[in-house]
Amino acid sequence: MIEDKNQQLTKLSDLGEFGLIDHLTKNFKLKQTSTIKGIGDDAAVLGFDNKKIVVTTDLLVEGVHFDLSYMPLKHLGYKAVIVNLSDVYAMNAKATQITISIAVSNRFPLEALEDLYAGIETAASIYNIDVVGGDTTSSNTGLLISVTAIGEVETNNEVYRNGAKPNDLLVVSGDLGAAYMGLQVLEREKEVYKVNPNSQPDLEQYSYIIERQLKPEARKDIIKLLNDLDVKPTSMIDISDGLSSEIIHLCKQSDVGCDLYEEKIPLDPQVITTCEEFNIDSTTVVLNGGEDYELLFTVSQSDFPKIKANPNLSVIGYIKEAKEGMHLVTRADSRIPIQAQGWKNFND
Amino acid sequence: MIEDKNQQLTKLSDLGEFGLIDHLTKNFKLKQTSTIKGIGDDAAVLGFDNKKIVVTTDLLVEGVHFDLSYMPLKHLGYKAVIVNLSDVYAMNAKATQITISIAVSNRFPLEALEDLYAGIETAASIYNIDVVGGDTTSSNTGLLISVTAIGEVETNNEVYRNGAKPNDLLVVSGDLGAAYMGLQVLEREKEVYKVNPNSQPDLEQYSYIIERQLKPEARKDIIKLLNDLDVKPTSMIDISDGLSSEIIHLCKQSDVGCDLYEEKIPLDPQVITTCEEFNIDSTTVVLNGGEDYELLFTVSQSDFPKIKANPNLSVIGYIKEAKEGMHLVTRADSRIPIQAQGWKNFND
Repeated sequence: MIEDKNQQLTKLSDLGEFGLIDHLTKNFKLKQTSTIKGIGDDAAVLGFDNKKIVVTTDLLVEGVHFDLSYMPLKHLGYKAVIVNLSDVYAMNAKATQITISIAVSNRFPLEALEDLYAGIETAASIYNIDVVGGDTTSSNTGLLISVTAIGEVETNNEVYRNGAKPNDLLVVSGDLGAAYMGLQVLEREKEVYKVNPNSQPDLEQYSYIIERQLKPEARKDIIKLLNDLDVKPTSMIDISDGLSSEIIHLCKQSDVGCDLYEEKIPLDPQVITTCEEFNIDSTTVVLNGGEDYELLFTVSQSDFPKIKANPNLSVIGYIKEAKEGMHLVTRADSRIPIQAQGWKNFND
Repeated sequence: MIEDKNQQLTKLSDLGEFGLIDHLTKNFKLKQTSTIKGIGDDAAVLGFDNKKIVVTTDLLVEGVHFDLSYMPLKHLGYKAVIVNLSDVYAMNAKATQITISIAVSNRFPLEALEDLYAGIETAASIYNIDVVGGDTTSSNTGLLISVTAIGEVETNNEVYRNGAKPNDLLVVSGDLGAAYMGLQVLEREKEVYKVNPNSQPDLEQYSYIIERQLKPEARKDIIKLLNDLDVKPTSMIDISDGLSSEIIHLCKQSDVGCDLYEEKIPLDPQVITTCEEFNIDSTTVVLNGGEDYELLFTVSQSDFPKIKANPNLSVIGYIKEAKEGMHLVTRADSRIPIQAQGWKNFND
């Protein structure tokens, strides 16, 4: 689909020396006062005064994390930034800079990389972060994107995974399961397309869940909201894998247990109808799906009045003593232990 | 050579969920006072008081940057760290932390990754840096390593590429061309091995140049030496590509020209004899080779007395006005314009 069959496109080998990263980033503007020197030297130089900095990194690999047959490159660039910013916000920090490295095969023309970087630039602009470094190299196959994100946080404002206490409320932003169901729809349409390349799918009824898969957002707004509400979570994590594994991370690192109430899990109507259509249980999707990039956090019960009326936040459970374990309390009021999923990436 | 044919080895898919990066890094010790939180949360948390920080990132791709048929994985891990630290030192900064991300195919057993991380740990220990984050994912083919390095520098101590002034001295640390010639020897032995797998090469006479290729060092010592000598370079860059392209970077960014004296280029005797054996011109190797990871910098003439007697430093030329251009002054006293090399990675 993006093979370089059009000879009007620009081969990467035509660009010559050292030009690619400069070419791709030349229109990027630096806006953060903490960015002293961006791209163009051996390293970027940053200054944060007395703030602490947070650093996180993620790899996205073609064929593992994305499929270019339905993921436009501009969206991919956007998403590669978002997944990293989400980790910064999960520390209760403000994202400030990123570096972007890509390994790319010769089958991509320059114009494809320009699309990718247009998505990166869009995300950088919307989230007000600077692109301050990167590396570009060839790969033997496919495309790989490595992003490192940097953020700043006032000392003592950072929130770790390990601060949840018994009786804290378990809270989630937004709604869950949509990105996973969007992926199921896209995978189905890909199979239909293989059989009949002239089919014109009507994806209108899946618009929300497909957008959640192809163009996720990071919850910068939730960090601001919590700050405005004067609520500091006791622990926090972003939901990149399924809800179950994120809950397990929080509980294990905090040495606590929890009850998660199935009936409290926030679901978009499109998730419910698409789960019915695919004959999948929506709770299973939420627990074991992924890529929601919502924030899961715990707050002291004393903060409940500040958050209870907010449509962006759902209280989905309670923290308990570690010895009580981690359970899903179903709509039928049975208690099922919450279990982690296997790591799908390395399956044979 | 490292395919998982030995069933006693541990398949990555056996490791289960989320265990790999923790397993590989569990023995890593944190030593930097600026590391507040390392691996194990959404992001690392760092605190640098009033210092500036520098950030740099590099990708190493199998088949492009390394060949596992002669590069042991432990050496590769070591080198992946070194090439990034070299960029930090080239800012006149102190390296403090790195993040390491790897994409790896199922053909690698766990034990291979343990070797890789043993090399990373060795480099981290020798250079006194903390590994504070990373990501581990599968790839469809081969191995890819993405490293981001972070360092600290007192405000106003950082050195950019753009500060060289006419009449400054052009100085290089160590000697040049050895890593490239080491690679030529290794490539030749690989071809011999293909024809006769029982051949036992005697590489003793190439020990230095092979070590420069397989186990390069970053010049942390030179940064300390310059500081001890109270010399602040006016510009600096590390030599990862050939000397010619690094000189061009310094001169273009500083808007100056230069004369580089061929007879002043520091060469190890093994480089000279191996160039003779391969019938390659040693100056061409130095200008267009790469991976020396030495530091190229400029100093004011007033600093000459401080550096002239040092065996680690060679004055190889002078900075001139931009309009005079960049030239190599040969042993025969002819002047040849210094030209950049094409970008080999993306050649068709």
